[in-house]
Amino acid sequence: MKFARHGEPGHEYPIVSGADGLWRDLTPIAPDVTPDLLSRSEPELGLEALPVVTRLERFGPPLTGIGKIICIGLNYSDHAEETGAAPPPEPIIFLKAPDTVVGPQDDVLIPRASRKTDWEVELAVIIGTRARYLTSPDDALACVAGYTISNDVSEREFQLERGGQWDKGKNCETFNPLGPWILTADEVPDPQKLNLRLWVNGHLRQNGTTADMIFDVAHLIWYVSQFMVLNPGDVINTGTPAGVALGSPGRPYLRAGDVVELEIDHLGRQRQNLRATP
Amino acid sequence: MKFARHGEPGHEYPIVSGADGLWRDLTPIAPDVTPDLLSRSEPELGLEALPVVTRLERFGPPLTGIGKIICIGLNYSDHAEETGAAPPPEPIIFLKAPDTVVGPQDDVLIPRASRKTDWEVELAVIIGTRARYLTSPDDALACVAGYTISNDVSEREFQLERGGQWDKGKNCETFNPLGPWILTADEVPDPQKLNLRLWVNGHLRQNGTTADMIFDVAHLIWYVSQFMVLNPGDVINTGTPAGVALGSPGRPYLRAGDVVELEIDHLGRQRQNLRATP
Repeated sequence: MKFARHGEPGHEYPIVSGADGLWRDLTPIAPDVTPDLLSRSEPELGLEALPVVTRLERFGPPLTGIGKIICIGLNYSDHAEETGAAPPPEPIIFLKAPDTVVGPQDDVLIPRASRKTDWEVELAVIIGTRARYLTSPDDALACVAGYTISNDVSEREFQLERGGQWDKGKNCETFNPLGPWILTADEVPDPQKLNLRLWVNGHLRQNGTTADMIFDVAHLIWYVSQFMVLNPGDVINTGTPAGVALGSPGRPYLRAGDVVELEIDHLGRQRQNLRATP
Repeated sequence: MKFARHGEPGHEYPIVSGADGLWRDLTPIAPDVTPDLLSRSEPELGLEALPVVTRLERFGPPLTGIGKIICIGLNYSDHAEETGAAPPPEPIIFLKAPDTVVGPQDDVLIPRASRKTDWEVELAVIIGTRARYLTSPDDALACVAGYTISNDVSEREFQLERGGQWDKGKNCETFNPLGPWILTADEVPDPQKLNLRLWVNGHLRQNGTTADMIFDVAHLIWYVSQFMVLNPGDVINTGTPAGVALGSPGRPYLRAGDVVELEIDHLGRQRQNLRATP
């Protein structure tokens, strides 16, 4: 099953798609795609009775009420290598604030003082069940509600050259396009078998597979749960493969007018126009 | 005016205190202390008509609906010095997730694998008006709804010895006691003239003044607004003065059974029992 949110910014309504591939208005059953909805173990939805949405326009972020976004740094060895870093001995954790989230086709704003706005295609994990001091990675995937695409947009100068903690370059306005939809975990038999791709102005820049994660999704959830509580509606951005601008000397960072497209198997496609900050 | 939230965890109701010093039930006027309430410029509250709360028990976090918590690192030169760091040339920013927030008298849990749980008394700034690319620090204090006390509890091993980004040691369960009340900005003529004190088991460990901040509150708000949008209900933990365990070799970190008390002029007092994580 896929959950998404459709409509103008701030006025999205929930939609759902099941076996027949049609998008239907979920409003008669649930007011929005919330952590509470995603944490129901047996959503008896009766999709057939819901009205079909025939004309699809803007997709918003696929979830409202996100509590926190946990990001994993340098989780693909080829990306660690391109940035000049050694593969980390244990996961690197930093945070993005939920108010950075925009829809998958919304504009991304280049911060006013930015010279190094960069892209990062990532598999995003949506938590459906509270995870706290999990005993083993074997318990982890049961806590996942579903998966979606995240663009972990990053300003490298702010992140790396302005005082030491990465959060400064990760939390600019519009810096986390999310969506278009959440594919429920039951339809993702192996989250380590997904291909990720990202294009800038039509040129393929990232082309990886989640098989190359240093720490897999189950390990990440188990690991994070030793340091903080994961609640329904929390998001984990699981890291990006090689091919970002930071790792490609001579390749330009993003500029107003650029177009970034992202794709992950079964999770759809994002497309953002880069704009100068008004 | 003071805003607070009173009652059992998860069932707090809003209370308010004005010129007569009495706490009154705000429920007839507002369902809770929310970012929306704090962003009203002229709350015509008519306090006298509200029922007085005669028996005060638990204070909860003084605000619900916190969007993000921005923390400033090493913002007092004596604290930078005690940790062996040079005073930063510009503010260091990291994040705490809102789900770390507990009430000012609630227990603080020592994480299961923790050996270095530490305290940090801090002035917390509550944002009342959206701040985005402010032109000058002169515009900043107008965005403040009020002030409260924050204990920016930190696990130093997780923060500094487990992979590079501080967030890992700042986001453990219960790691941000906040409150007891928000004192509205109109009653804080100068946020740089407040004394901060913290005791562990009755021993004074931190005794500083906001006059010693390297970057003052106005500068911090202006600075942060260049990198991210500050929204009503966001919180800035403005850094801690000297006296933490990290800076005092031979002084023990926190252990189950310890009691931490915190005080800032005009902002009241916190008291937490340290407990092992169940």
